[in-house]
Amino acid sequence: MISTDLAKFFRVKPDTRVRLKDYDPGWEQTDELARLGKQSVRKRAEDLLEESVAELAEAQELLYADNRHAVLMILQGMDAAGKDGTIRKVTSGVNPAGFQVFCFKAPSQEEVDHTFLWRYFKRMPERGRIGIFNRSYYEDVLIQRVHPEFVSSKHLPPGKRGKSFWNARMDDINAMEEHLVRNGTLVLKFFLHISKDEQKSRFMDRINEPDKHWKFNPGDLTERGYWDDYVDAYEKALTATSTKHAPWYVVPANHKWVAHAVIASILSTSISELKLEYPKLTPELKESLEDARRQLDDEE
Amino acid sequence: MISTDLAKFFRVKPDTRVRLKDYDPGWEQTDELARLGKQSVRKRAEDLLEESVAELAEAQELLYADNRHAVLMILQGMDAAGKDGTIRKVTSGVNPAGFQVFCFKAPSQEEVDHTFLWRYFKRMPERGRIGIFNRSYYEDVLIQRVHPEFVSSKHLPPGKRGKSFWNARMDDINAMEEHLVRNGTLVLKFFLHISKDEQKSRFMDRINEPDKHWKFNPGDLTERGYWDDYVDAYEKALTATSTKHAPWYVVPANHKWVAHAVIASILSTSISELKLEYPKLTPELKESLEDARRQLDDEE
Repeated sequence: MISTDLAKFFRVKPDTRVRLKDYDPGWEQTDELARLGKQSVRKRAEDLLEESVAELAEAQELLYADNRHAVLMILQGMDAAGKDGTIRKVTSGVNPAGFQVFCFKAPSQEEVDHTFLWRYFKRMPERGRIGIFNRSYYEDVLIQRVHPEFVSSKHLPPGKRGKSFWNARMDDINAMEEHLVRNGTLVLKFFLHISKDEQKSRFMDRINEPDKHWKFNPGDLTERGYWDDYVDAYEKALTATSTKHAPWYVVPANHKWVAHAVIASILSTSISELKLEYPKLTPELKESLEDARRQLDDEE
Repeated sequence: MISTDLAKFFRVKPDTRVRLKDYDPGWEQTDELARLGKQSVRKRAEDLLEESVAELAEAQELLYADNRHAVLMILQGMDAAGKDGTIRKVTSGVNPAGFQVFCFKAPSQEEVDHTFLWRYFKRMPERGRIGIFNRSYYEDVLIQRVHPEFVSSKHLPPGKRGKSFWNARMDDINAMEEHLVRNGTLVLKFFLHISKDEQKSRFMDRINEPDKHWKFNPGDLTERGYWDDYVDAYEKALTATSTKHAPWYVVPANHKWVAHAVIASILSTSISELKLEYPKLTPELKESLEDARRQLDDEE
């Protein structure tokens, strides 16, 4: 399966009603897995990851030299879906100066005192860079939708907090993303799809392994209690905001090696499709290079 | 030569008057080079780099988990001294989420309208992270000292722009760095030391090699004309600001493999000396882990 196909395979088509149960988090549905066996498929995924990371390193150099585009990569998923690990794997071996990774935690009072998009917009990647958002403004239509009491603490103008409130937020998101794309930012959004059983097993690992204790947050278990509400909120968000200009990818994430390979491949392929180029040698630059050469030669 | 020795060897002792001509940018002075030959020394430098990068990856995980310290790494040097390449090499294979790299270009009007430290202070690394400044507030006592006309455009209160003006800036820098250190930031400052001949040869490469053209800035040649003034300004800055809490390291950088190995080693050794530790399992956390395990077990 070549990279362009991968992107098409996992992309959520605009105006499709998303039902997560139609997406297999284990990627077991592929005929290949049955035909070739897990070890063989895993080996191919690891090769794909390695290849994509190497391509990404080159693509990022070019993105920087070209200096007309930025890339925004958004990672969302349930707790323990593997967001941190994905960032680590996908960016391994690439120049950190080309990345800006932001992990959004609880907002400051100053941030709460602005519109919900403000703190994210401030951190958008500059031209030539890849910005990675570990969680994003989508939290404002996910966790806040699951816990409407969080919204009422945000000092918003009065009004109903029903469907039209959430749809308006999604319209705001679509408009901001369209603005980004029009101005040269490539926007890629990945939902790391794990099953409820897989989350349980990852939580158990954090509880049982001493060097993972510090990663366990008892609050995660409370949120697990709202699993079905989160699925519902995600389905609504993915349905409303997977657009032509800024598509969502639903990535099977029960096997980390599948998720890493798929995301690295889609990222590097999408950047290479930007038709980037090294700045051309203009007559002015050519002349100034000749001048400089003469001047250096004349030094002694 | 083991790592702790390296740090001592290249560190500028507080209250030492720095003369750059006493520092060999080629590292030719070592007996080892004569005794073992360049290939053998180079191999050892490459081994040291690889080892240090692996140690740094571990140290950075721990820095993040410990969450009490930040690291500020400053890179300064003449044009083409190898600042970008150093960042790339030293951070290769380390989680980009642990780094925040800032490359300071011409300031905005808003930044000019604040004190000279303001735009840098805003970008200091948060606890658990390594902030890398590619150029820094030291430019304000280097390029501005070489070109005093830049200072007069900064809307500063009237007054003499003599020695005491520059010393006051260095006092401000020392005070800010002491504040950072007192509050948990490890401050490491590297001067990448190249010879004037080596700069010429690197400029020539940029002029002659088509895929390096875009890196060449004709303005760099103008600045080369002020080489001796820069040396003078660097000597004054290194002398005044290599303090016990925030030392400067003068790193021989004519050979990139020497500079990369030395900096990676000093960085990883310095972090490991912070005595970081994974958060301890408190009785409260232990209980909450037990609760969580029971709750997950009871699900079915």
